Amino acid sequence: MTSTQRTASLAIPGGRFLIVGGASLVGSTTADLLLAQGAAEVVILDNFSFGARETIAHLEGNPRVRIETADITRLPQLLRAIRNVDGVIHLAAMMTISMDRDPEVGLEVNIDGVRNVIAACCANGVKKLVFASSNAVYGYGPGVAGELVETTPFHSAGAPPAAVLYGASKIIGEQLCRDAFRRYGLDYVILRYSTVYGERQHYRAANALYIIETHDRLKQGLAPRVLGDGSETKHFVYVGDVARANALALAAPASDVAVNLSGPAPVTTLELVNLVAEVAGIPIAPEHVAPEPGKVRLTTGGAFRIAHEEAERVIGWKPEVTMREGIRRLIAWREGSKALAAE
Amino acid sequence: MTSTQRTASLAIPGGRFLIVGGASLVGSTTADLLLAQGAAEVVILDNFSFGARETIAHLEGNPRVRIETADITRLPQLLRAIRNVDGVIHLAAMMTISMDRDPEVGLEVNIDGVRNVIAACCANGVKKLVFASSNAVYGYGPGVAGELVETTPFHSAGAPPAAVLYGASKIIGEQLCRDAFRRYGLDYVILRYSTVYGERQHYRAANALYIIETHDRLKQGLAPRVLGDGSETKHFVYVGDVARANALALAAPASDVAVNLSGPAPVTTLELVNLVAEVAGIPIAPEHVAPEPGKVRLTTGGAFRIAHEEAERVIGWKPEVTMREGIRRLIAWREGSKALAAE
Repeated sequence: MTSTQRTASLAIPGGRFLIVGGASLVGSTTADLLLAQGAAEVVILDNFSFGARETIAHLEGNPRVRIETADITRLPQLLRAIRNVDGVIHLAAMMTISMDRDPEVGLEVNIDGVRNVIAACCANGVKKLVFASSNAVYGYGPGVAGELVETTPFHSAGAPPAAVLYGASKIIGEQLCRDAFRRYGLDYVILRYSTVYGERQHYRAANALYIIETHDRLKQGLAPRVLGDGSETKHFVYVGDVARANALALAAPASDVAVNLSGPAPVTTLELVNLVAEVAGIPIAPEHVAPEPGKVRLTTGGAFRIAHEEAERVIGWKPEVTMREGIRRLIAWREGSKALAAE
Repeated sequence: MTSTQRTASLAIPGGRFLIVGGASLVGSTTADLLLAQGAAEVVILDNFSFGARETIAHLEGNPRVRIETADITRLPQLLRAIRNVDGVIHLAAMMTISMDRDPEVGLEVNIDGVRNVIAACCANGVKKLVFASSNAVYGYGPGVAGELVETTPFHSAGAPPAAVLYGASKIIGEQLCRDAFRRYGLDYVILRYSTVYGERQHYRAANALYIIETHDRLKQGLAPRVLGDGSETKHFVYVGDVARANALALAAPASDVAVNLSGPAPVTTLELVNLVAEVAGIPIAPEHVAPEPGKVRLTTGGAFRIAHEEAERVIGWKPEVTMREGIRRLIAWREGSKALAAE
């Protein structure tokens, strides 16, 4: 007697993958990794509104790379672009800062966009979807404390509308994946990213600004700024670790599941700013400032840690790069990149 | 020295009000109340996909009532219909059962629809919006226990996708109101309804089915059905109390706030089924059954109570009608309504 065991595992070598929102920090790093692991084709899909050509400049001309300009709010464009791929990694989203600027467009991208990507995956027989969600699904404010695990509820009381809209839009994106699995059998893994940082860092993630704005000020000989007493917790994850998780989520037999990604340990904003100064070798003590009015802030109450043990159990992933090492790489890239730009 | 005190209070007598999703249980009862309180005009807006002509049959021909057929997913229709009104009560929504049938349309109605209503309110100088949210913003499952207050987080682990989508879509609707208040100064009150029941009850609310399906079975001489041991908590609110809250939310100076509406006390499903049998005078003992596969169920873990004390503080409302009295009125209406239909 033979039996066909259904598996949600995709082989990376020889496979064809599409990265939605690929001209990005996470997208470009993931593309590099999939190519290094032997993927037959990597399609970078982006509308280039946030995604930048320079982020994927090193991939242009690679015979295994195809670049598609398409907008996830336009289903016909997606239906064409997603043809003939085995797996899709969906990264495109508006984050809190963009959601604050234009909530209508933010919701369209984060909800209708996910719906369209799922519809295009189902129409084109895509075998597996990796959906980039966020620890924003746990919310903000005093309730967010202690160990944040995958069943932690969404706290929204007191948070700014844009932050709640962002978190809720990610919750909806996740549920659209669950719904597609039940209705159409689309295999998926949801990865709830904490704040991603690393080489090719941009200025669009509210929390990652702590790193690059600090570095910018230090380079100008200015004291870096810490909001309040700097005791607030942040939990980052290095982009290379995230790319590895994306590949593992495709390759693992896991499906219909959501797991957290986070770095080895959380930091306080004061520790972080001091770490950047130390790694940059510019020992200027930080100044403590009050929050700027009108600027979206993501505040949490008590100290917390985003637990990543479930990711190890489900897709065999754990973070490898410490904050110190990650910041060293980010700064080295910024120095190199700026040196290059100044040439 | 004179000063102009900005107030979000709207006078009902002489005022002009529009009820979005007005051809409904809550809409028709609210229209009746606003007319009884001396409103100059009540506009009933509905696309009549769920809303029923018979629900508002008694209002047709009333010179103070205008009926507008419009769809909230069509902004131009709303811009026309919302002209020349002082206050808007937004009720139109897809609930969990509809969200399960068609999540795409459900999200369009509950998110894009709210966005359009807000845009039409702002464009037409509406002074105040009352938004019907739901206790679904607290979610489902074991985390939902004890006193549910306005800052209780959203629990979604383990709940069916349609239920989470419904709750999250209401969270987004609320945040769109908050955002419009901050950006455009649109005054609003959010009322988080618990399950509404009463005269003109329909079959679309998953929880209210406990009442009317029980009554249907009793009338047929069949034992009413209770899922499991019947210890699960439900918290209902009588439609007349909800209509009163809608009027108070318009009239109160309160703005930029969300409060719970719930009846005097929660019940277990077993108590509820026994209460219906007792009030109907058909003493058939219930049978305990297993949940039907494929049917959306809204389960909560422990016993809970939806606290309504904040509504009293903010808009001066508290529930008046007990479950026994409300069920008596619902059954009396069903008997009368069916007698009428059989004539």
